Amino acid sequence: MRKTLSELADMLEGRLEGEDLTVTGLSSIEDAFPGALVWAEDEKKLPLAEAGRASAIVVSMETRNSRKALVRVKDPRRAFAKLLRLFSPTGETGPGIHPSAVIGENATLGKDVSIGASAVLGEGVRIGDRARIMPLVYVGNNVEIGAESTIYPNVTIMDDSRIGRRAVIHSGVVIGADGFGFEKDGSRHAKIPQIGNVAIGDDVEIGANTCIDRATVGSTKIGNRTKIDNLVMIAHNVRIGDDCVIVSQSGIAGSTTMGDRVTVAAQSGAASPIGKHVIIGHDAVLAGRSGVIKDVPAGAIVSGFPAKPHREALKDLAYISRIPDLEKRIKALEEIL
Amino acid sequence: MRKTLSELADMLEGRLEGEDLTVTGLSSIEDAFPGALVWAEDEKKLPLAEAGRASAIVVSMETRNSRKALVRVKDPRRAFAKLLRLFSPTGETGPGIHPSAVIGENATLGKDVSIGASAVLGEGVRIGDRARIMPLVYVGNNVEIGAESTIYPNVTIMDDSRIGRRAVIHSGVVIGADGFGFEKDGSRHAKIPQIGNVAIGDDVEIGANTCIDRATVGSTKIGNRTKIDNLVMIAHNVRIGDDCVIVSQSGIAGSTTMGDRVTVAAQSGAASPIGKHVIIGHDAVLAGRSGVIKDVPAGAIVSGFPAKPHREALKDLAYISRIPDLEKRIKALEEIL
Amino acid sequence: MRKTLSELADMLEGRLEGEDLTVTGLSSIEDAFPGALVWAEDEKKLPLAEAGRASAIVVSMETRNSRKALVRVKDPRRAFAKLLRLFSPTGETGPGIHPSAVIGENATLGKDVSIGASAVLGEGVRIGDRARIMPLVYVGNNVEIGAESTIYPNVTIMDDSRIGRRAVIHSGVVIGADGFGFEKDGSRHAKIPQIGNVAIGDDVEIGANTCIDRATVGSTKIGNRTKIDNLVMIAHNVRIGDDCVIVSQSGIAGSTTMGDRVTVAAQSGAASPIGKHVIIGHDAVLAGRSGVIKDVPAGAIVSGFPAKPHREALKDLAYISRIPDLEKRIKALEEIL
Repeated sequence: MRKTLSELADMLEGRLEGEDLTVTGLSSIEDAFPGALVWAEDEKKLPLAEAGRASAIVVSMETRNSRKALVRVKDPRRAFAKLLRLFSPTGETGPGIHPSAVIGENATLGKDVSIGASAVLGEGVRIGDRARIMPLVYVGNNVEIGAESTIYPNVTIMDDSRIGRRAVIHSGVVIGADGFGFEKDGSRHAKIPQIGNVAIGDDVEIGANTCIDRATVGSTKIGNRTKIDNLVMIAHNVRIGDDCVIVSQSGIAGSTTMGDRVTVAAQSGAASPIGKHVIIGHDAVLAGRSGVIKDVPAGAIVSGFPAKPHREALKDLAYISRIPDLEKRIKALEEIL
Repeated sequence: MRKTLSELADMLEGRLEGEDLTVTGLSSIEDAFPGALVWAEDEKKLPLAEAGRASAIVVSMETRNSRKALVRVKDPRRAFAKLLRLFSPTGETGPGIHPSAVIGENATLGKDVSIGASAVLGEGVRIGDRARIMPLVYVGNNVEIGAESTIYPNVTIMDDSRIGRRAVIHSGVVIGADGFGFEKDGSRHAKIPQIGNVAIGDDVEIGANTCIDRATVGSTKIGNRTKIDNLVMIAHNVRIGDDCVIVSQSGIAGSTTMGDRVTVAAQSGAASPIGKHVIIGHDAVLAGRSGVIKDVPAGAIVSGFPAKPHREALKDLAYISRIPDLEKRIKALEEIL
Repeated sequence: MRKTLSELADMLEGRLEGEDLTVTGLSSIEDAFPGALVWAEDEKKLPLAEAGRASAIVVSMETRNSRKALVRVKDPRRAFAKLLRLFSPTGETGPGIHPSAVIGENATLGKDVSIGASAVLGEGVRIGDRARIMPLVYVGNNVEIGAESTIYPNVTIMDDSRIGRRAVIHSGVVIGADGFGFEKDGSRHAKIPQIGNVAIGDDVEIGANTCIDRATVGSTKIGNRTKIDNLVMIAHNVRIGDDCVIVSQSGIAGSTTMGDRVTVAAQSGAASPIGKHVIIGHDAVLAGRSGVIKDVPAGAIVSGFPAKPHREALKDLAYISRIPDLEKRIKALEEIL
């Protein structure tokens, strides 16, 4: 794609300052090349951008002048996100079914569906219009995948899963493996069959190698527009609301219920000690590496393990660092007496 | 499957109370449908079950009466697990080898084995009777898989691995990748070849995207009936006993030895600081998010990081919350003097 | 492979003590068999090695005599690593392209390349000489893989990724999935297209089921000779230097920069609270389970969460255990007054 800076400035409702060059691509400041447009987050980044090989720089209205061409905009971060969407390579393989794909009986394939090489689809699957099933994907029996969803290579979607429209499921994801349910039988563990399924809403994105287990009965549910990062564990019968964000390597234990717009930062966990099931309220935030073991009220920010209100957790850390001082003061008192 | 409530009550050695309806499926209370049988864990759950669309409810002997049909049993949880096994959809594809599967030379396939589409089996593999290798599975050279085992789609089992009978290996699992072994050579790290294998007992279940690395020499061992959840890391030369339970996202470092009936709760780890190898005794319990860095005696319950006996770890937490009070008391003393 | 002890002693610049037997393989002490050569790390391990079925034992120059044949060497650990390389089964399938592999247009395949069954290669891929792409691997459009690299089964390498020479990529790895980048739009999250790539140096090893996300723009970079273990998360735009070691289940958040020769022990994390990006200096060490949230100076050893210099973190732990004593002393003072 080739665009002039003035065309881009117009699109961004911004202002071009300097020569109206032609841009051939976007770049990070570090990897810039002649023809590249880069983004200087703030004035500190500007000298780096100027020193590099970029042809032009997206900056805020307040940023100082430069000898390089500038595109001034109100919100540079948002403007660059817009540019990314513009320059995003579509490079899509056209629709069609690769001859090496295997498709079970009674499958229903929508219009302009694309099924990649060596993909394997079970019986009774229903794939919506323009959905893309990439190579080496396994789709089990009676799975439903909504229109315009993309299933990347090497994904596994087990029987009876339901995935909404415009989903993006990254490689290595496993949806609908058995929940981890066993019944103690003396010192042994007998498997409890997991006959439920996984139900995922519209506009959901699921990161690479994340696992979402099927429910024992009923459904493990992921709400609309929820975004899940890589290597996350969602256990059986979990219910996650709409517009949540769950960052990498977090784990949500069985039967946890999570409201809408919850943020779970990286490497966190939610589980209850025994029997009870944790409820996380709307708009709650679990800070990075937090471990929740009881209910979190709506809007609360918690951190630490066991997780507490974030302010209390910070106080705990401060208290610990005060112990040596306390010890000194006790010693002083002891010496007086 | 369709069963009358009286048939089910007989099977569960329970008692029907109310109309002898026909049940068409099991359900969670939240997702119930007409014809569904649900399970009310305790009296608090009963109103929910009554308000929903379920046709009948499994309850304990002591639970109050209801206007819905009840199946009273001694242990509702166990009864429901039994029902799950009864209603578990078998839906198995019949035995047979899909024409797109690739099978190496000198493979030995047992009776009624099923090999799915685009599965790839190396040379000299031995697959036991009635084992199911699902689509897109890779089985390396000289791998042995016992009778009646199920290997779900997109699993990778590298050369020389041995898997027992009735194993259940979920999608995305990697068995027998190289252990993480390097030798320092100045500031560089030279690979130590990993020529051992992985040996897994009978009746083992391994969750989605879990990794079990091959031994440097000898075997990484998983005992009989041990159950491992999703996204768990088992490093090279680990030895895990029989009847253990290892919950999601836990990691067991190289050469750790674990006895029988050990429970490792979610997001835990076991490793030793340098050189030594941790031994975890029979029946030990690692609480959630614990990090073990020295031996754990048989029967001990440990938590925290570095993990301590659980009571001590709880005391530590309580102590921290007492610091502000201590500070006040010191201040009071200082003012007196 | 069969070698006499005297041949092996010569190769190791060591000394044979006892009968010049023929060795048929290496083994761990526990799994030894007649014909096996084992390694006794120190004198404590020697009785175990003697009691087992091994035919001969590699020991240090100082170890006591034995009734079994000994190969005495200066550094038994290093010697055994050498033996492992000697005995490492090559068992490689010869070069060639399996008829079930699918290769896109304009692919460039080097000399003696091997492409396994049902591997799928996109358009414009370039594969170096003697590289091995094992079965069921997905290689996206315009991916470059260097000479003599090994890509194990069920790996996914997305479009535009670049992988150096002699790389070892274990099963289930996902390289080049989209970075987790969203833009807030009210309470919703709009996807920021990720149009960068992943660039991996020479002699890199990446463990099973690890994920390395593509950059938003520019490249997520892994330096030469860096070794990454299983189930690790490397987020978008991370830059990792040369000769680093990142152990299992660690996670490195977006845009973190890591110098050379950094060690990240198991289950660690590096992230910054908001907006800023963490820089980890050359030769730094993140101890096991540490959580870094600010820059780490070159050469520093840090631990705990939030991570501190390791000595301080150890002191914090010691302080906590002193609280009960402090409480007693305060009580004593109070009683006096």
